[in-house]
Amino acid sequence: MPSLSAPSAAIRAEATERLAALATPPGALGRLGEIGVWVAACQGQVPPRPLDNVRLVIFAGDHGVAAHGVSAFPAAITGAMVRTFLSGRAGVNALARAHDVAVRVLDIGVAEDFPDISAQQRAALTAYKIRRGSGAIHLDDALSADETEAALAAGAAVAGEEIAAGAQLLISGDMGIGNTTPAAALVAAALGLPGAEVVGRGTGITDEGLMHKADVIDAALARAGDRTLSPIETLTALGSADLAATTGYLLAAAQHGIPVLLDGLMSVACALTADRIDAGASAWFAAGHRSTEPAQSLALAKLGLEPLLDLGLRLGEGSGAVAAVPLLRSAVALLRDVALLSELEA
Amino acid sequence: MPSLSAPSAAIRAEATERLAALATPPGALGRLGEIGVWVAACQGQVPPRPLDNVRLVIFAGDHGVAAHGVSAFPAAITGAMVRTFLSGRAGVNALARAHDVAVRVLDIGVAEDFPDISAQQRAALTAYKIRRGSGAIHLDDALSADETEAALAAGAAVAGEEIAAGAQLLISGDMGIGNTTPAAALVAAALGLPGAEVVGRGTGITDEGLMHKADVIDAALARAGDRTLSPIETLTALGSADLAATTGYLLAAAQHGIPVLLDGLMSVACALTADRIDAGASAWFAAGHRSTEPAQSLALAKLGLEPLLDLGLRLGEGSGAVAAVPLLRSAVALLRDVALLSELEA
Repeated sequence: MPSLSAPSAAIRAEATERLAALATPPGALGRLGEIGVWVAACQGQVPPRPLDNVRLVIFAGDHGVAAHGVSAFPAAITGAMVRTFLSGRAGVNALARAHDVAVRVLDIGVAEDFPDISAQQRAALTAYKIRRGSGAIHLDDALSADETEAALAAGAAVAGEEIAAGAQLLISGDMGIGNTTPAAALVAAALGLPGAEVVGRGTGITDEGLMHKADVIDAALARAGDRTLSPIETLTALGSADLAATTGYLLAAAQHGIPVLLDGLMSVACALTADRIDAGASAWFAAGHRSTEPAQSLALAKLGLEPLLDLGLRLGEGSGAVAAVPLLRSAVALLRDVALLSELEA
Repeated sequence: MPSLSAPSAAIRAEATERLAALATPPGALGRLGEIGVWVAACQGQVPPRPLDNVRLVIFAGDHGVAAHGVSAFPAAITGAMVRTFLSGRAGVNALARAHDVAVRVLDIGVAEDFPDISAQQRAALTAYKIRRGSGAIHLDDALSADETEAALAAGAAVAGEEIAAGAQLLISGDMGIGNTTPAAALVAAALGLPGAEVVGRGTGITDEGLMHKADVIDAALARAGDRTLSPIETLTALGSADLAATTGYLLAAAQHGIPVLLDGLMSVACALTADRIDAGASAWFAAGHRSTEPAQSLALAKLGLEPLLDLGLRLGEGSGAVAAVPLLRSAVALLRDVALLSELEA
């Protein structure tokens, strides 16, 4: 793995100069101007190249806490939704087709093994499978230390494959009933916050469910103790196979110098964890949308990222990031194609 | 012109039912769910058709107030930017190419007559020209009553042409140095507010310029007197040829039952005026982005519209609406293509 570097400061300065030289009033492009400069700095090129090859990987897994009253849906939905991704009929599939984003789904830690799908499809789906479900974090570690390392390496390998396929921008998506509980726990551990400050309603739990979810997180934090000082031990104690793989994927993208558009809570909790593992990784990340989960906003604030969209989405799957892809393309188009003032005066 | 009707309540109910029946958690699509239902109701069809034919018309004109210290740029920029639109090198051209939106620019009230461009291009550009510049509204009426009627009719004719060309969604754009002053005056007149509450910095005036701009609006409002009770007389006294044409265009879109995605202050001031002329027109309008101009937010609040984007754009030209077009396409794709829960259970 290449060691982490920052997006090019020299190219960032050159892109900022180009932005100021466009035949538009100063600052008139707002956040689209800033994002265009960021893409250019990540690419090391002014003007930036069009983002023709954008790739989403959905990391699926089950979570022991799902059996303990933290979700509005039963755990069997995880596998059902994986099948829906494979058939191209889920929300994120519809968005990805509309915006020309490649979609890949991986079973990293689903409780079942998909006996009903074709052997070829199953081989691709489960190529990086770590285990069947992850531990109920208020009772047990989510993973063994070896599993955490394997999941991080799996995510890194997947990022490498996507980059080899030409990815100019990477997105992580998630599927896993109960996953907002370990993801919020990762954020709580990183920021030193209690469960009550990080929990949200996920796909729609009640007030009582919300209080219980906070208690589950507090019990998990207490159980993890000072292992939360290490981001990798935090994944072992409080995360899951799919969240560890997502972390490895985001970290590898940054280490390879490929920009990432973050999605909701799972994506951002893993981005925060990646930045704890290798400080500065988040310079390669932009935020696609603001989730309704409080922990996502807390983690984004810690990373200094402001989402492009705030549309009340709480679908997961990578959908908020995919919906924001056209805004990055807008930003690139403006910095590439708008006339320079000097050209008009010539 | 057909008389105004509302988007179909029956189709809205049917689309809302389909949204609830999708294989997604209740409410998980947030604003994208609501917007998809609105598009379906406007189209009278569930699921809605893809928005393959989206058309922007930029209404250009000069404003007498531009010679009175309300803008950071000289009036000659209006004609220069019209030439930039024609050459496809302006900000909105870059966005429109990125998102497959057709662009047409019309000289409705530019101070010059474009002697240097080809006769064919000039004929198309000036086909609906009303006058050379509009009056300085703090000193004179912007238009004669006949000019106002002619401009409203021109805008309606243009909307008719775009609809005949297959438009499934219409956008209005603006170009005209000084145009935020008459547009803010239209909003002030409609809402009964003083200049100080509606003025913004446009393309970048100073604090002193901002106070002066408020004074210009107050003088214009005082001069107009109780003519502001009539939306059409308000256009005559406080508007301009391009703003009256934009109003006619938006009103005609609503009367023809074609949905509109609104842009910044000029677009929204005209939408508010159209809704004053024919109450209920705004049911055919959605808001693309929040402008940095206070009058735009005030007018949107009056119309009950919440913008999809808030990215600090202040470019004008229709750019904020064009940047938001992919979100409408996202909304349509979700309501069309996501599996129904009943299909997955079958």
